[in-house]
Amino acid sequence: MRVGLMGFGKTGRAVSSMLLQSRKANLQWVMRRSRALEHRSAPEFLGIDSNEPGRIHSTSEMKAADLLDRYPVDVIVDFSSEDGINYYGREAARRGIAIVSAVSKYSEQKLRFIRLLSGATRVVHSPNITLGVNFLIVAAKVLKKIAPYVDIEIVEEHFKTKPEVSGTAKVIASNLGLGDEAIKTIRAGGIVGVHEILFGFPHQTVRLKHESIAREAFGSGILFVIDNMPQVPNGLFTVEDLMRPYFSLDDEEDTPDGGGTLWHEFLHYVEN
Amino acid sequence: MRVGLMGFGKTGRAVSSMLLQSRKANLQWVMRRSRALEHRSAPEFLGIDSNEPGRIHSTSEMKAADLLDRYPVDVIVDFSSEDGINYYGREAARRGIAIVSAVSKYSEQKLRFIRLLSGATRVVHSPNITLGVNFLIVAAKVLKKIAPYVDIEIVEEHFKTKPEVSGTAKVIASNLGLGDEAIKTIRAGGIVGVHEILFGFPHQTVRLKHESIAREAFGSGILFVIDNMPQVPNGLFTVEDLMRPYFSLDDEEDTPDGGGTLWHEFLHYVEN
Amino acid sequence: MRVGLMGFGKTGRAVSSMLLQSRKANLQWVMRRSRALEHRSAPEFLGIDSNEPGRIHSTSEMKAADLLDRYPVDVIVDFSSEDGINYYGREAARRGIAIVSAVSKYSEQKLRFIRLLSGATRVVHSPNITLGVNFLIVAAKVLKKIAPYVDIEIVEEHFKTKPEVSGTAKVIASNLGLGDEAIKTIRAGGIVGVHEILFGFPHQTVRLKHESIAREAFGSGILFVIDNMPQVPNGLFTVEDLMRPYFSLDDEEDTPDGGGTLWHEFLHYVEN
Amino acid sequence: MRVGLMGFGKTGRAVSSMLLQSRKANLQWVMRRSRALEHRSAPEFLGIDSNEPGRIHSTSEMKAADLLDRYPVDVIVDFSSEDGINYYGREAARRGIAIVSAVSKYSEQKLRFIRLLSGATRVVHSPNITLGVNFLIVAAKVLKKIAPYVDIEIVEEHFKTKPEVSGTAKVIASNLGLGDEAIKTIRAGGIVGVHEILFGFPHQTVRLKHESIAREAFGSGILFVIDNMPQVPNGLFTVEDLMRPYFSLDDEEDTPDGGGTLWHEFLHYVEN
Repeated sequence: MRVGLMGFGKTGRAVSSMLLQSRKANLQWVMRRSRALEHRSAPEFLGIDSNEPGRIHSTSEMKAADLLDRYPVDVIVDFSSEDGINYYGREAARRGIAIVSAVSKYSEQKLRFIRLLSGATRVVHSPNITLGVNFLIVAAKVLKKIAPYVDIEIVEEHFKTKPEVSGTAKVIASNLGLGDEAIKTIRAGGIVGVHEILFGFPHQTVRLKHESIAREAFGSGILFVIDNMPQVPNGLFTVEDLMRPYFSLDDEEDTPDGGGTLWHEFLHYVEN
Repeated sequence: MRVGLMGFGKTGRAVSSMLLQSRKANLQWVMRRSRALEHRSAPEFLGIDSNEPGRIHSTSEMKAADLLDRYPVDVIVDFSSEDGINYYGREAARRGIAIVSAVSKYSEQKLRFIRLLSGATRVVHSPNITLGVNFLIVAAKVLKKIAPYVDIEIVEEHFKTKPEVSGTAKVIASNLGLGDEAIKTIRAGGIVGVHEILFGFPHQTVRLKHESIAREAFGSGILFVIDNMPQVPNGLFTVEDLMRPYFSLDDEEDTPDGGGTLWHEFLHYVEN
Repeated sequence: MRVGLMGFGKTGRAVSSMLLQSRKANLQWVMRRSRALEHRSAPEFLGIDSNEPGRIHSTSEMKAADLLDRYPVDVIVDFSSEDGINYYGREAARRGIAIVSAVSKYSEQKLRFIRLLSGATRVVHSPNITLGVNFLIVAAKVLKKIAPYVDIEIVEEHFKTKPEVSGTAKVIASNLGLGDEAIKTIRAGGIVGVHEILFGFPHQTVRLKHESIAREAFGSGILFVIDNMPQVPNGLFTVEDLMRPYFSLDDEEDTPDGGGTLWHEFLHYVEN
Repeated sequence: MRVGLMGFGKTGRAVSSMLLQSRKANLQWVMRRSRALEHRSAPEFLGIDSNEPGRIHSTSEMKAADLLDRYPVDVIVDFSSEDGINYYGREAARRGIAIVSAVSKYSEQKLRFIRLLSGATRVVHSPNITLGVNFLIVAAKVLKKIAPYVDIEIVEEHFKTKPEVSGTAKVIASNLGLGDEAIKTIRAGGIVGVHEILFGFPHQTVRLKHESIAREAFGSGILFVIDNMPQVPNGLFTVEDLMRPYFSLDDEEDTPDGGGTLWHEFLHYVEN
């Protein structure tokens, strides 16, 4: 699958390096606002041995229409900012190029725009695109359905200088029907990122905990999305939507057995 | 629902106390091997204010057929030992009384017997009947399906004197296709019981952790089973089977949107 | 050592059971406000096989002077309420009987009274008398001295219905020169009690974590205090004071070696 | 303080970057076996804005005597391999240059050599030179002294490909008088490094846990050592030795009070 990447900050670089190392994705280009690094190649810059082009361009160099005509891709992965979608959104949708955006926050207006784009192409948007966090959210929703009365608290830990409450924690809370007061925020030293959902039962606790080690975790999330993109012409999806099929455990091996056993066989057994 | 309880050791007492305090279950009797406490009532013995009979009997006092004729129940909950099923199994199955067994280990022969019983009535068997552990197992299987390449380790912590590896940890391992070498066993002081399933990804970790506070946790598990017993005449089930429907997240609210948006509406929007 | 116990609520009972099972302490009596259980014996009530008297009295039955004359003790352990000290304080001090109070909160006036008592006898007061929490406090102070710049956060978890912030967490915070905003409070289900002190360095974290399993933990704290009571005639102490000697690690085995090696021996070695 | 650094692998680079960013240390040079990067400067290579020279040399370029004559330093920090000490050891000792070695394992013979060197200069050796791990070791020894009967288990978690049991875990175990069977080893994904010492009491647990976020943690350890190097002419020390003074808590503020209160003042008080 041919991939174009928007954004080449710390996270963008980590994601490129994951894409370059995966056989599923072929990194065609990187587009960024800054002209620094213009025309260098991502594999060379990152010191990764790869034949994928991954040429670095800047938005002032050419329009999205030119870019997509000259260097066609199947999917655009967006780790830039809220404005990135303005650059490529319309041209991508026109060409049916899938969009995977990990931009953490969009304005209401931008979200409306994205919803419209999703009428013409597949769009996946998730503010925290790691596998782990998205799994946690779905699993937590399941547990809440099983035990609606349980007490739930969310703890998030990040580096001292991270301002405000973690956006991911807010997404978790809202998915569980909780307000922000359920979130306990810890800021200390250089903690990369921890999210824990604690379920307190009267006589037991369940803790679902995700810990980020490095930004490359976003790259694995992107690869999961690329692999599990729905086979439909268009629509707006979350990573949760893509995970849902995995939660249906109707494997044959799991079928309850015993049903076929006959009563007289039983009587025969116990009689002897 | 009228409930009879087999076993009145530490766990049996904790479970009785949960049953007595729940409106879903009505504790008809307790049956145990020992004659101590014979004819006392469980609520009185446990100091719980309840109108439920909960009379304590011993197996030498009467046969199961007499017991079930005189004090009929809808379900028998078994926290006794491997041999308990010999006492009541056949008579329960004959009468279509559901069986919920939390006995931790059955011989192959007993399991065959139970499978036969399940041809005539509903049987739920789980060696660790807490909600939390069973949720962990199903959730872990889902995560392994999502990320088959992930490294999984299981850590179990218990009080110093607990001999051998935790049976629950073995069940978790076997459910995940892992051998016993994936289990790390910690024995120290008076730890009640902790099970953690650790998923190590290259750039992130997910930890699913269950901690028992008290034996009453088994009682909540029983109440979940009673509530979610399948509406079928017979069959052999695990708590997992009963949890599976909660893992299908096909709520309407979760349907991906955007699909209905028309392309021309989009063009209209971006053109303006 | 002959011990008298003030208070026989849930914690008082757990502590009695620890005292009865220890060879260091001999439980002479239990004094409580309520007349329930009057003249029964603690070992019999708790089902513990012990020759220690442990007779249960009520404060309305006799004055402290009578009690201490008829049933003399070496130390009074107080798990009653703020007012307990009024009953026995003066008479204990007069007789040089040591006082160990685990009452969680005293008014300023009561504290002044206790300070006065400590002019005549040894008084140990600690609102959380577990070994673990007191160790944590001293260890945390050490780490803060080693790394004064480190970020510290305190997390405390308790059962849903516990009102207000944990007093123990407040004691930890004030010992570390932190305000209450450093404390994150989690309330869920039946969690017995967890306190974690998190030290966030730029490139590492240290977590000191205490988890209560049962109230009997207070009993072990009392036994530590009884064992380590300073050999002085009077004074007011904390459990920390009693722990401090253990923190001086001047064992002979730990002495740095190498100092005695002679330079010419070295030259001889490297020359060959 | 003028510092020379042996070794410029991943950890050596991380440590250089910490030294360059600290005002306490001035990085004079980096010495490594490989000729790659020869004569480049560490600050330039690492992209750190600094006036410190930090020139990169290779051992084949010049002998230690030349190096130390031309570019004198006060301390040599060694993150190379077991053999590094052969290159610089004798010349450093001759000149009284302090040595701080973080090499993880030395042969018996090398340790004898180092002991001899320490007859002529100060040597600090620690296989895990992070602040956190060394604090954990000393704190754990204290807690074991307070509660000699407690059960102790050590858990270490590292990335999947780390072979063998963590050397740090072994050092912890041996410091606590435990065998290697007390160590539980977890290998999964990309976990950087976690060490937990678990103390299991009958009714409570204490956990001392260290988590590495990045290799730079070794740099903070080096800065601590440089700051706390004993003011003696020579000797062999561990980081623990340097930490020990912080564990003596004889601050004035901590003195128990009450001792000065007079008995008659007390009587006066309670009489009124």
